[in-house]
Amino acid sequence: MADINSKLEIGVTTGPIRGSKKIHVGPRRVAMREISLEPSSGEEPVRVYDTSGPYTDAACSIDISAGLPALRRDWIMERGDVEAYDARQARPEDNGQLGPDRSGGVPAFPNVVKRPLRAKPGMNVSQMYYARRGIITPEMEYVAERENLGRAMAKDHVRDGQSWGAEIPEYVTPEFVRSEVARGRAIIPNNINHPESEPMAIGRNFLVKINANIGNSAVASDVANEVDKMVWSIRWGADTVMDLSTGRNIHDTREWIIRNSPVPIGTVPIYQALEKVGGVAEDLTWEVFRDTLIEQAEQGVDYFTIHAGVRLPYVPLAAKRMTGIVSRGGSIMAKWCLAHHKESFLYERFDDITEIMKAYDIAYSLGDGLRPGSIADANDEAQFAELYTLGELTKRAWAQDVQVMIEGPGHVPMHKIKENMEKQLEACGEAPFYTLGPLVTDIAPGYDHITSGIGAAQIGWYGTAMLCYVTPKEHLGLPDRDDVKVGVITYKLAAHAADLAKGHPASQVRDNALSKARFEFRWRDQFNLSLDPETAEQYHDQTLPAEGAKTAHFCSMCGPKFCSMKISQEVREFAAKQNAGIETFVAAEDAEKGMKEMSKVFKETGSELYMGQGDREHD
Amino acid sequence: MADINSKLEIGVTTGPIRGSKKIHVGPRRVAMREISLEPSSGEEPVRVYDTSGPYTDAACSIDISAGLPALRRDWIMERGDVEAYDARQARPEDNGQLGPDRSGGVPAFPNVVKRPLRAKPGMNVSQMYYARRGIITPEMEYVAERENLGRAMAKDHVRDGQSWGAEIPEYVTPEFVRSEVARGRAIIPNNINHPESEPMAIGRNFLVKINANIGNSAVASDVANEVDKMVWSIRWGADTVMDLSTGRNIHDTREWIIRNSPVPIGTVPIYQALEKVGGVAEDLTWEVFRDTLIEQAEQGVDYFTIHAGVRLPYVPLAAKRMTGIVSRGGSIMAKWCLAHHKESFLYERFDDITEIMKAYDIAYSLGDGLRPGSIADANDEAQFAELYTLGELTKRAWAQDVQVMIEGPGHVPMHKIKENMEKQLEACGEAPFYTLGPLVTDIAPGYDHITSGIGAAQIGWYGTAMLCYVTPKEHLGLPDRDDVKVGVITYKLAAHAADLAKGHPASQVRDNALSKARFEFRWRDQFNLSLDPETAEQYHDQTLPAEGAKTAHFCSMCGPKFCSMKISQEVREFAAKQNAGIETFVAAEDAEKGMKEMSKVFKETGSELYMGQGDREHD
Repeated sequence: MADINSKLEIGVTTGPIRGSKKIHVGPRRVAMREISLEPSSGEEPVRVYDTSGPYTDAACSIDISAGLPALRRDWIMERGDVEAYDARQARPEDNGQLGPDRSGGVPAFPNVVKRPLRAKPGMNVSQMYYARRGIITPEMEYVAERENLGRAMAKDHVRDGQSWGAEIPEYVTPEFVRSEVARGRAIIPNNINHPESEPMAIGRNFLVKINANIGNSAVASDVANEVDKMVWSIRWGADTVMDLSTGRNIHDTREWIIRNSPVPIGTVPIYQALEKVGGVAEDLTWEVFRDTLIEQAEQGVDYFTIHAGVRLPYVPLAAKRMTGIVSRGGSIMAKWCLAHHKESFLYERFDDITEIMKAYDIAYSLGDGLRPGSIADANDEAQFAELYTLGELTKRAWAQDVQVMIEGPGHVPMHKIKENMEKQLEACGEAPFYTLGPLVTDIAPGYDHITSGIGAAQIGWYGTAMLCYVTPKEHLGLPDRDDVKVGVITYKLAAHAADLAKGHPASQVRDNALSKARFEFRWRDQFNLSLDPETAEQYHDQTLPAEGAKTAHFCSMCGPKFCSMKISQEVREFAAKQNAGIETFVAAEDAEKGMKEMSKVFKETGSELYMGQGDREHD
Repeated sequence: MADINSKLEIGVTTGPIRGSKKIHVGPRRVAMREISLEPSSGEEPVRVYDTSGPYTDAACSIDISAGLPALRRDWIMERGDVEAYDARQARPEDNGQLGPDRSGGVPAFPNVVKRPLRAKPGMNVSQMYYARRGIITPEMEYVAERENLGRAMAKDHVRDGQSWGAEIPEYVTPEFVRSEVARGRAIIPNNINHPESEPMAIGRNFLVKINANIGNSAVASDVANEVDKMVWSIRWGADTVMDLSTGRNIHDTREWIIRNSPVPIGTVPIYQALEKVGGVAEDLTWEVFRDTLIEQAEQGVDYFTIHAGVRLPYVPLAAKRMTGIVSRGGSIMAKWCLAHHKESFLYERFDDITEIMKAYDIAYSLGDGLRPGSIADANDEAQFAELYTLGELTKRAWAQDVQVMIEGPGHVPMHKIKENMEKQLEACGEAPFYTLGPLVTDIAPGYDHITSGIGAAQIGWYGTAMLCYVTPKEHLGLPDRDDVKVGVITYKLAAHAADLAKGHPASQVRDNALSKARFEFRWRDQFNLSLDPETAEQYHDQTLPAEGAKTAHFCSMCGPKFCSMKISQEVREFAAKQNAGIETFVAAEDAEKGMKEMSKVFKETGSELYMGQGDREHD
């Protein structure tokens, strides 16, 4: 695998995804991935949405100490509404170095920006601000081109689906993007201090997106490994990445990640603030929190999870629950409120926070600190009390033209998922919903990527704009590289299933291309069109390793005699020839020939599989 | 792992599932699994539905050459409506031995029944026949006890859910089982020649069931391995097993499997019939097929997949499709119809088949030979034309009091799943629906247990009675032992999610027990209550291996400082003490103490995890 080799050389995973190449489309040179199919098939290459950035571009050389090119720099400067200023000084506590132990530090990023950007006094640099004034930004143009991918190929496709009130257009224009951002139904998270990011939109009328979480290792000796967690996640399709690091080295690690990230980066600032006060929730203050927001704003964090909906009066509601509060940020704020018996300073100071957000174009991800952590607690009083407060805060943020999305649960049985979506749309004025799963049962630890993937596909269909992944290690331990990949692929397929069900105009192009390849026994095309080509080929080769099998006109499940696909191809030929008179039995003759050919190929490719068992699909 | 060790000794997987023991309940001694929780917790043991048979009973010794005890023998004989007769003679072609190569044979089962049972002339021994005459059989009593599991524990549980028209009673009586079987809304598949089976019901008003498929290996040198495929599937929760073997040794292998199976066994007789005519579909005849039905009926097969709905006029409809016919049985019959330009002999002879079924109490599983094999073909003319024919055949089978279930798709996007369920209920008079997935997208080969688990959970919620599993190898290769386990666990969680959403009175008991254990940091109880205790513990130990961690009051995701569960326990204590006056700051003090304790435990259990990253659920 190219990526693995390259990793050894330069520290992060690079190299094209097999069977595809990077292309750049339109005046804004929007990055896309193109999968080319077997020439013999006469099929067009298939273009797919690409989150992987320059790391999968054979034409790019990667140097993580230099960071990625600043794609958006000129766009930002040309607006003339920002100023550079002397950055806040980094302090030891920014890296969680309060105690005597300062070991395990990571090197500072070589080219740290000394003079970050912020809005000029009185200015607002949020995409929502521009949108509401009728301005179409280059970021909006980029998003439009990116979201339109495939629609040209899909022109003959008959529109189909149940959108539950979403208004997905046949074709996405920059004006449509602007209007969606203007009314708060979509966000484009991109801090002006993260010019390396490729603009993307989160909203119910765009493709469903997914987020992957990463966090720092205990001893971050190799910074490349920290950066590679992000690179690995986006390689498989993460649209945004949240850095949930705690403890040591988080400031420096975050800098390395942002400088090398083509996708928006989200954080939960309360984590770092808590570190700055030695982990004692009661000692948190507005000043420490504000300082942390500025610190991260200058580094370029694109969205902040803020648990401002956890209000003092709601805390007792959570105490009645089966599993109390399962959100870290939520429980920290609940503890602060109780210890001081005061209203949350995040709620009290919300407008001050918004003032900071709009000076950098940071989007809110309003945290659901009281989301249910078990089936028993789903859709309860505590959860919905907070949701309606998040709706109130959404409108307060919008009043200052700051972008907002809303975080959602959690653990919810299937019959209660739709209520979550409906209440969120109503309470939050269609601000994008960003959910974790939800997990539809509690009884499958070790398989919670699946229990949550089931809920994610459904809530995505109902209108959730971004799905936060869950790995197989959820509730049990820390995900490793394989867990992250499985989590991302699971969520990509859930998001795609949602797009199909909503009737996204182009979503079925890839399904059709893969199914056609399957029917025509183009095995390599099947692998390359799949979300995880390497795994697909490995699984195939475990049973039919021979190269010849890649072109065999049957598969291992049934063997030639029982190959339904082959037989139904004969049926199709026969039906086509019916005018020649039914009694000519063309099919039978064809079959004889076909069987002989197949048996020959088959002998070459491992006849011990002749009696291979069938999957149920092939009964 | 006990099972692995035992396997080496006696050829199949035995030993209790960790943390639980086998119990037998009620006058019919219904087998259940009881999971006992940490005594300190003061929690009742949790009883769960058990499909694993004597293999997980520490009190039983297993000898596969003797087979399982004939649990139902007396029940069958006492009805006085059966007679023993000389069995059909097994022939070489029954084992696919037409050609010169007779190698790789398996030994015949030592105690093959020479005189199988069938209904006396003019009699009908189907459970439906008895039910319709008001007779409550021991099988129905067994099912009632089995389905009631947990309802006693759940008595305080507030009923909740959306059942889409299912009529799930608070408590299942034998009379309820009878009435469901009588009206065809549930089946109890149990051939009178398979007295080893533990009765179970498939119907929308009972727990959602799952099926696992197995098939013979190319060279079945070790018959124990063939039997163990069944034993391994039921260990993890398969309610029925389909033997989809083709080619050599299938008669003898089937005998070994049935004699050792506590769950109903299903087959697709057309596969063996095709072997008997050398794999040439056109050479199939009613006589060969009938002979195969008798052969398998005498062995004790509990349900037959019969593709009688693939009629000549429907074949051209399938020719227009993206992926034609993906059912093996369906394509074989389509080819036969075209080659002879005649109506299917399965359709023409349907009443003759029913005559055989009722003499042994074999249930129909009417095959969906024209199910869609791709998103593009979902819910098309060919599929629904066949479905309505299956509805017609259902009524013809019911006219002779023979039990019926209906097989369903396949590949269906989420927004078209409900239509499948609704049309099936209408066309087939609520006969149980038995679906494969459906897969909600085509683009994730290697992850089709998940793409199909998403569809399975939904259609199970809508009313499907049994879900046929799909493994990660679907479309790519033959599932191995691990694939089978992953497939079964995935479908168990999907079926359970469906029970929860339907509002099954007892379904949430296990979720609550596990979530309570999670909140109280009873790690071992969490593992033991999960669908796959071994995987859950392994994942946990990868991050926190120390024994101490099994009792640590935090987990690896957050470490003690960020442990939301711990903090919210403090919140709960605090709320409880509020009468003592808010200004006493109990929470803060408790916290200090708590933190010190936790830090101590934590140091012992691997403080390198102190800065462990959080899953998103813990943000």
